[in-house]
Amino acid sequence: MLSALVTDLYQITMMAGYHALGDDRPRTFELFVRTLPPHRRYLVAAGLDTALDYLESLRFTAEEIAWLRQVPALAPVPSAFFDEFLPRFTFRGEVWAVEEGEPVFPNEPLLRVTAPAPQAQLVETALLAIITHQTSVASKAARVVRAAAGRPVVEFGSRRAPGLEASVLAARAACIAGCVGTSNVEAGRRFDLPVAGTMAHSWVLGFPDEVDAFRGFMALFGDATTLLIDTYDTVAAARRIVAEGLRPSAVRLDSGDLFQLSREVRAVFDAAGLSATRIMASGDLDEHKVARLVGEGAPIDAFGVGTSIAAVTDAPALGGVYKLVETTADGVPQPVAKRSVGKMTLPGRKQVWRVTRGGTASHDVLALEGETVDGARPLLRCVMRGGRRIEPRPAVSAIQARCLERLRELPAEVRDRLDDATEAPYRVELSRGLAQLTERVTAPRGAGAEAASQG
Amino acid sequence: MLSALVTDLYQITMMAGYHALGDDRPRTFELFVRTLPPHRRYLVAAGLDTALDYLESLRFTAEEIAWLRQVPALAPVPSAFFDEFLPRFTFRGEVWAVEEGEPVFPNEPLLRVTAPAPQAQLVETALLAIITHQTSVASKAARVVRAAAGRPVVEFGSRRAPGLEASVLAARAACIAGCVGTSNVEAGRRFDLPVAGTMAHSWVLGFPDEVDAFRGFMALFGDATTLLIDTYDTVAAARRIVAEGLRPSAVRLDSGDLFQLSREVRAVFDAAGLSATRIMASGDLDEHKVARLVGEGAPIDAFGVGTSIAAVTDAPALGGVYKLVETTADGVPQPVAKRSVGKMTLPGRKQVWRVTRGGTASHDVLALEGETVDGARPLLRCVMRGGRRIEPRPAVSAIQARCLERLRELPAEVRDRLDDATEAPYRVELSRGLAQLTERVTAPRGAGAEAASQG
Repeated sequence: MLSALVTDLYQITMMAGYHALGDDRPRTFELFVRTLPPHRRYLVAAGLDTALDYLESLRFTAEEIAWLRQVPALAPVPSAFFDEFLPRFTFRGEVWAVEEGEPVFPNEPLLRVTAPAPQAQLVETALLAIITHQTSVASKAARVVRAAAGRPVVEFGSRRAPGLEASVLAARAACIAGCVGTSNVEAGRRFDLPVAGTMAHSWVLGFPDEVDAFRGFMALFGDATTLLIDTYDTVAAARRIVAEGLRPSAVRLDSGDLFQLSREVRAVFDAAGLSATRIMASGDLDEHKVARLVGEGAPIDAFGVGTSIAAVTDAPALGGVYKLVETTADGVPQPVAKRSVGKMTLPGRKQVWRVTRGGTASHDVLALEGETVDGARPLLRCVMRGGRRIEPRPAVSAIQARCLERLRELPAEVRDRLDDATEAPYRVELSRGLAQLTERVTAPRGAGAEAASQG
Repeated sequence: MLSALVTDLYQITMMAGYHALGDDRPRTFELFVRTLPPHRRYLVAAGLDTALDYLESLRFTAEEIAWLRQVPALAPVPSAFFDEFLPRFTFRGEVWAVEEGEPVFPNEPLLRVTAPAPQAQLVETALLAIITHQTSVASKAARVVRAAAGRPVVEFGSRRAPGLEASVLAARAACIAGCVGTSNVEAGRRFDLPVAGTMAHSWVLGFPDEVDAFRGFMALFGDATTLLIDTYDTVAAARRIVAEGLRPSAVRLDSGDLFQLSREVRAVFDAAGLSATRIMASGDLDEHKVARLVGEGAPIDAFGVGTSIAAVTDAPALGGVYKLVETTADGVPQPVAKRSVGKMTLPGRKQVWRVTRGGTASHDVLALEGETVDGARPLLRCVMRGGRRIEPRPAVSAIQARCLERLRELPAEVRDRLDDATEAPYRVELSRGLAQLTERVTAPRGAGAEAASQG
């Protein structure tokens, strides 16, 4: 699906426009999120790995070019664009990015692309779809993992994901943010993630008796299995497990009052010496329900969380944007910005600096490239030059470890609270250089006829 | 991405369980949505085409099987499962389905799968992800199209879609429900959809003067183009277009007060004889904003709608389920149902009948297969036998035409209202046969030890 045609038509028309003008001067774009969705206090960057795969593989096939040639809107485009430009097109730009797993805040570039105009333009649509989708999932999963307060969370949402590719990439993003595994087998294979799962209600319903279903499964898999016990009557099923002498390593509750049922099932098992049998809970859980169950002391040992993570039900789309911040005129970089009402942008190539005090992040500084902030850590690193990755692909387990470490660095009121912040929960300052440049570039100058250049 | 491993691990463990038991008796599952999301009064079925592609192509590659063999949870599984069963695995079942573009209601099966247990089980996860994603997008797009009241709506949401595959399939689903085209080029190529788009703000920002940007574009594309005029000052840009003697076929407004700006821009153009220049509006639109603009009489000729359609921002996940409704014992079909609290299902293979009076649908009847409803139209058709499609793939344009025709058939209060219904806006009755069977199968019978069989 990493096809060059997965883009908006206007990227192609603009490419044709740049080609017609002979303009392949570098442009720099930055990808960022304007505002946090409801309830969020931070985002967790994810999707860079897919984005770099996309950029490295970007080609127009002969079949795709033949199709483009007959698009009515492209009829005026000279044949050189189809005959010479598109067949040789590759992405040869430079990319700076925040590492996957890093907590980020509004207006901080997640990605910065510098490339000849046609290349930098074409990739906007796909980069946004890739990065904001996976960042959205990772950000949600981080909240659920936090709410579980140390109890393992397994990502179970493939069936509610928006399609198959999304299910696989959501599983990866969820694991970046701390999920211990996923039910998605392809995600397990492709990204070397732990996979989990045993039986569904349909298995139980396929037998004349619930206990026959349990025995049938354990005959193959032994005790190291999780029995699903809510098909008929959860507590009655627990009692029958005890009465029949079964000793499953875990049971799963997928419906009903999980607090009450988990206490009753725990009591049944403990009274019968099955104290090693763990209880897993699932069924339309999100961070708020998980936090409530944990807070009430429900004896739940692990959570399976699906829809709320894989479909990010409360904030399915981050308002991600990819904005031109720099053009080139006569070989000199020209910072630019958009001044539309409510859609203003900050000009120039930027770097994000995280300032920590005593191991805790105090604030970030959004600065111009070239500025430095003493005692702070820069978040953007060069990850691609000349259209090629400059580092090997990191393992998800390593990204997860980094993510958990970086989350520990956040102030508790940013990291641990699940509700809306009444004011900005974390401060992102503009550097002096960026503030001055922004003022210069975005100052109103009449009816918009003038260039938004550095001057 | 149509890999057999895009599934939950428990589908594989259950397949191994059925294989170990030598159980390949037919099972029947139905895929349906339990409740309408907020504001919805109907859903528009979509995704069947992708679902059938998935079923037809289902294979386990040697590499996938090798990977499965080393999954710790599958360690107890005998080698015959990996050596003999998985390499020969294909889907050879029968599928009945509601046609794409058909309006549907809660509890009505969108899809019914009958196949040997391992086959019918494996496909649950992918079928749900495919069908509910595309149905969700089509259902949202239908509302936006309705709100536009005849003005064309173009799907613009690729950048906010949850990944690349989702962007392409969302474009298709949106066109099924009446969007006249999409900005997504790959969707245009793959599904023969009209594609639309001209320029972004970055094009305008790349020139020292806004008018240079317009002229640069029109030098290549001529008058038949849509100029984006909100980069600096929307009305000032309209005045400069007039002053410079440009005559674009359309302009696009992407920010600000679209009602006020469209009126001012229209006045500027009309006063200068540019009455043929159309106004397109975009920018975080949804059905409510579109309805308001239309209701207020904004002189907007077309809408570009992105995030709200492609990410279905107000209802990103339909609560789709895939439930066992029939097993086989001693060669005799046994209707089954799940009795969990709040998750009850209706047993038996079903058909949906739509009853129309005077060209308007009055209600649906959910019946058992084999029952008929006089003067009504059955919605489920056989679309696959022995794992092969039985009909050629329909064109999206034909599906769209059918969708629009079927939507016209709905009562106005179901089709036209955008708000929540205070009571069920459309009646779905159970047939006498289904009601009786449900009562028999789901009646409480003690501690859940008994079979949920027809008896």
